[in-house]
Amino acid sequence: MRELHSYLRREQPKINKAIERRIAELPDEARPVARHVLLAGGKRLRPLLTLLVGRALNCQEKTSELLYELGAAIEILHAATLLHDDILDNADLRRNKPAAHILYGMAPAILTGDAMLAKALHIVSSFGDARLTACVSEAVMRTAVGEMAEFAHLRDMYLSQEQYLDIITGKTAWMLRSSCELGAILSGAAEPLIQAAATFGLELGVAFQIVDDALDFFPTEKTGKPLGGDIREGKITPPLQLYIASLPEQEATCFKQRFRDNAINSAELDEVNACIYRQGYAQRTRELADSRLIAAGASLDVLPESAERMVLRQMMLYIQNRDR
Amino acid sequence: MRELHSYLRREQPKINKAIERRIAELPDEARPVARHVLLAGGKRLRPLLTLLVGRALNCQEKTSELLYELGAAIEILHAATLLHDDILDNADLRRNKPAAHILYGMAPAILTGDAMLAKALHIVSSFGDARLTACVSEAVMRTAVGEMAEFAHLRDMYLSQEQYLDIITGKTAWMLRSSCELGAILSGAAEPLIQAAATFGLELGVAFQIVDDALDFFPTEKTGKPLGGDIREGKITPPLQLYIASLPEQEATCFKQRFRDNAINSAELDEVNACIYRQGYAQRTRELADSRLIAAGASLDVLPESAERMVLRQMMLYIQNRDR
Repeated sequence: MRELHSYLRREQPKINKAIERRIAELPDEARPVARHVLLAGGKRLRPLLTLLVGRALNCQEKTSELLYELGAAIEILHAATLLHDDILDNADLRRNKPAAHILYGMAPAILTGDAMLAKALHIVSSFGDARLTACVSEAVMRTAVGEMAEFAHLRDMYLSQEQYLDIITGKTAWMLRSSCELGAILSGAAEPLIQAAATFGLELGVAFQIVDDALDFFPTEKTGKPLGGDIREGKITPPLQLYIASLPEQEATCFKQRFRDNAINSAELDEVNACIYRQGYAQRTRELADSRLIAAGASLDVLPESAERMVLRQMMLYIQNRDR
Repeated sequence: MRELHSYLRREQPKINKAIERRIAELPDEARPVARHVLLAGGKRLRPLLTLLVGRALNCQEKTSELLYELGAAIEILHAATLLHDDILDNADLRRNKPAAHILYGMAPAILTGDAMLAKALHIVSSFGDARLTACVSEAVMRTAVGEMAEFAHLRDMYLSQEQYLDIITGKTAWMLRSSCELGAILSGAAEPLIQAAATFGLELGVAFQIVDDALDFFPTEKTGKPLGGDIREGKITPPLQLYIASLPEQEATCFKQRFRDNAINSAELDEVNACIYRQGYAQRTRELADSRLIAAGASLDVLPESAERMVLRQMMLYIQNRDR
């Protein structure tokens, strides 16, 4: 993973500079919220994908600088969706800091999100390539639809695995897909290569979210307890589904009914969380991600051999093994 | 006004068809909310401005059809901002129908708004003219900033007229400005004509909102009572400012303090509303709009004489005299 880490160390400051330049272009009123949500940390996974894919597909020196602008745009889009999502999730914290709507209020959070969406789409459209704009516009729509589906299926005890995968494909994977596709389009690569890059991003994104949903049940370093936010919010993810499937029939029926009705108290939820981890359902969920990572790897093989392709491969491993 | 009305009758169905075609392109999940907010009626003022300005500046036959697409995009943008604004305003109704977030829930309302923003910006960017995309992106940002400023200044008893005008320029006028500017750009007009069209739209928009703020204090046909929504929400608009300025100093100080603290009960607010109307402050506010309409007219004079320019002039009169 040495190459990935040194790539990160080298590129994150440049990515952050591009983002800060764009924040400075926002209207005065939108800047504090944008700064709060965009500069609260974050790995810059999406811009990094844009950079890596663009370079893996032989972006020329001059075009290469433009990759930072596309990367900044996709990170701004992502942050805009976080602003709106935190409101809908009633999330008080984002990366251990107060969420923007808590700190600044609902109106600045929603409206700065809108301004950021407009800004990001404008940055991308200024490249004058209709494919780039179509790509990010589609990403915003897919992300919104994925989130809508997630809300529609909260506490839906009949959620199928296919529906679960549809949800996470929208809410998470599509933006990673677009991050890769933008880099590929800008590189001037042929259509099959663009498609391969897009599929890589999509599969990587699905794997990313599956691992995320598994990690929610892992004990955290600090507290030794799992986060357990998902089952509190009524989100049905594979670890919970595996747990329910393991219960004797009558117990399962009863649990499903009580979960659906949000009638399980906090102490019992803590216990369920711990049990899911102890019985290995969180770990088994991680393994679900593996087949998606294999698909991602197959798409990556279509790209020509390069230093960047190796870093992209390490990114797959990072996602597979990350523990926070 | 005959020409305006026959123009409206002729063009509204075509504008609506263009909007419906675009709704059909939205993802399944976003369509019901989009349909609800976009097909709930509305005068299609913004698309109409795009059409009229484009034609007044000699859009060719072929380009003329494209004006409907730009018009649909601006109406979709406008509707997206309404979706978000109704949430922030806690509005239960929009055009006498339940607001989307009441009928469909918060998540579908916020997220469909995002999808619509993305869709509209995509439509505009597909024209491949960077000026068009810059124009709508700017409109979204200005609208958001205007609304943010409005929320920041609720119950701000020190709001100056300049600040009031800044707020309405953002939240309302800029989108009308952009509606005109889009038509002018598409027509291929020279820069001074584009600027004149934009200024016309901006001034028209400021006048439109001033009249709107005055009408809030006019008795409605149905109830015989004013709407009075603005002072209930804590919005400081010119009729209220004129009323406060008319009070004896001590009374004014007391009223301002109680208004700021939202300590005035509903019956008393009704009385204040009625008093503002009776004493002619709503009517005097309407007159404030006149100077902006004169400025709009001066910009309109820069455009060449045409049937459309006459309709635009009638639109100014319509805004000056509208009573609902």
